[in-house]
Amino acid sequence: MPASAPCKILIAAQGDETRWKKAMTARLPDATIYSQDEDYDPAEIDYALLWKQPQGMIKSLENVRAIFSLGAGVEHVLSAPSLPVNVPIVRLEDAGMAQQMIEYHVYATLHFMRDFDHYLRHEKEDDWHPHDVAEISDFRVGVMGLGALGAAVATKLSDLGFSVSGWSRRMKAIENVATFAGDETLDEFLGQTDILICLLPRTRQTEGLLDSARMSKLPANAAIINASRGAVIVEEDLLRLVDMGHLRGAFLDVACNEPLPKGHPFWNHPKIRLTPHIAAATRIGPAVNQIAENIARIEKGETPAGLVDRDTGY
Amino acid sequence: MPASAPCKILIAAQGDETRWKKAMTARLPDATIYSQDEDYDPAEIDYALLWKQPQGMIKSLENVRAIFSLGAGVEHVLSAPSLPVNVPIVRLEDAGMAQQMIEYHVYATLHFMRDFDHYLRHEKEDDWHPHDVAEISDFRVGVMGLGALGAAVATKLSDLGFSVSGWSRRMKAIENVATFAGDETLDEFLGQTDILICLLPRTRQTEGLLDSARMSKLPANAAIINASRGAVIVEEDLLRLVDMGHLRGAFLDVACNEPLPKGHPFWNHPKIRLTPHIAAATRIGPAVNQIAENIARIEKGETPAGLVDRDTGY
Repeated sequence: MPASAPCKILIAAQGDETRWKKAMTARLPDATIYSQDEDYDPAEIDYALLWKQPQGMIKSLENVRAIFSLGAGVEHVLSAPSLPVNVPIVRLEDAGMAQQMIEYHVYATLHFMRDFDHYLRHEKEDDWHPHDVAEISDFRVGVMGLGALGAAVATKLSDLGFSVSGWSRRMKAIENVATFAGDETLDEFLGQTDILICLLPRTRQTEGLLDSARMSKLPANAAIINASRGAVIVEEDLLRLVDMGHLRGAFLDVACNEPLPKGHPFWNHPKIRLTPHIAAATRIGPAVNQIAENIARIEKGETPAGLVDRDTGY
Repeated sequence: MPASAPCKILIAAQGDETRWKKAMTARLPDATIYSQDEDYDPAEIDYALLWKQPQGMIKSLENVRAIFSLGAGVEHVLSAPSLPVNVPIVRLEDAGMAQQMIEYHVYATLHFMRDFDHYLRHEKEDDWHPHDVAEISDFRVGVMGLGALGAAVATKLSDLGFSVSGWSRRMKAIENVATFAGDETLDEFLGQTDILICLLPRTRQTEGLLDSARMSKLPANAAIINASRGAVIVEEDLLRLVDMGHLRGAFLDVACNEPLPKGHPFWNHPKIRLTPHIAAATRIGPAVNQIAENIARIEKGETPAGLVDRDTGY
């Protein structure tokens, strides 16, 4: 397809196609844009914008030039058995999510640092029971995963006054954040973390990464915040460490099974706060801009921003 | 007393005298410092450091040169019936409290903006129920009281992305904060405030200021955060507006009667969060420095920082 020709774009977004199609049409008026429920020829699709697409869809897109995830995660694309070897997979970077992740993690971190978890329990017992106010610089926050979201959260928490460190697979440099890299530093990183924030992608390497052995490396009374993917934490191990009292509590936005089934022990647990995967929603405006700019890059033979490395899975 | 003579200082701090005496002694080694339970001649006291002092104490301090409050509020001093007319009253300014107030209000404001109040209730019903994520810039926070604490909170919330306005008795200018001043602007200020933060001092003018009529000027679904003094809000009016559904909820650190009695309707109310007056504790290090610097100013005939205007009460 010559660079100037209008391209054909397919959107599969779990029932949310209308909004995406409207925004993409406004941004790329020359393109032909299909929702998955419309009549289209899969072989003619140039670009696919996917979020938890139906099984088999990717296989039918014989001439697709790139696949865009409509979220920060790409496990729904990479796990497709028929994924063509040479098609670039592109994920959203930030797209309004960093600001929301900052809001969520500032709240969840202060929840533990300022004892709001204790006061919630005291409220139920009509118990006016002040604790001494901790110094923010005495609280060591550790952020696992230092991509666009993790780095933004780490920086803002440091700005607020927390002592912040970060861990990632490959070494990153972030101002005012002590960074660790690689498996061999993980125990050391965990050992100096009072509040662990997990912002890792779901990949083969991160599934079940936070198991009983690793979470036990956290100091006594540490807390865990997870707004990335439920599968990164072994849920029964977390529950046991909280119930044993090694961990002070957890603040979770994700679970292995979503929606979390009624009756699950996380519900209404006195030391676990739970939100229904709302920490950060893709903002359609910045997302559409990012996709349109990446399509232009690909048409010019350039590398799109957010290109996924299939080996690492992000 | 000549400026060079060692001065005599009395500390009454509700049982917390040992810590204050130790810190003051370290800071002013030449001064003679008494706890209220020690043997001292009241007529010889030059400076009194008071927090909710015993009745009659102020009257006995015939030659006191200044009275320092060990907190941001001074109502415990101003309400003493025997307060000498010409003695300067000095309150603490910030003294580590601004940082703590920022932490408390960032948490309480995000509590409403990011629907954590709703999710707390959903948790009790095993209800995985996502709401759309609001845009932070759509949330209008109004801060009443723009002293050292209110101004610091307003500035930080604006930095985080909220739309912030402020109200005070006398006009203040704060970068990125729309300011209102005086009684005649109060209704307008309240009418454009989704989350009302009260950081007013307790004075004759502010007691009962937030009554049913004034709180009804807030838009439907507004929330109130109060970490200043319980008496500024008419508690039964607040409760009625919350129960009627005009107000979304309240986040309270203070009450008219503290400790809040068991059985009070604020306890365990589904729309009211309660903490036991812990939003900001005086930090002894910065407080002692501030007092020592103010004593030096007074000895040189200068005006101390934080001098209270007895007419306004702060």
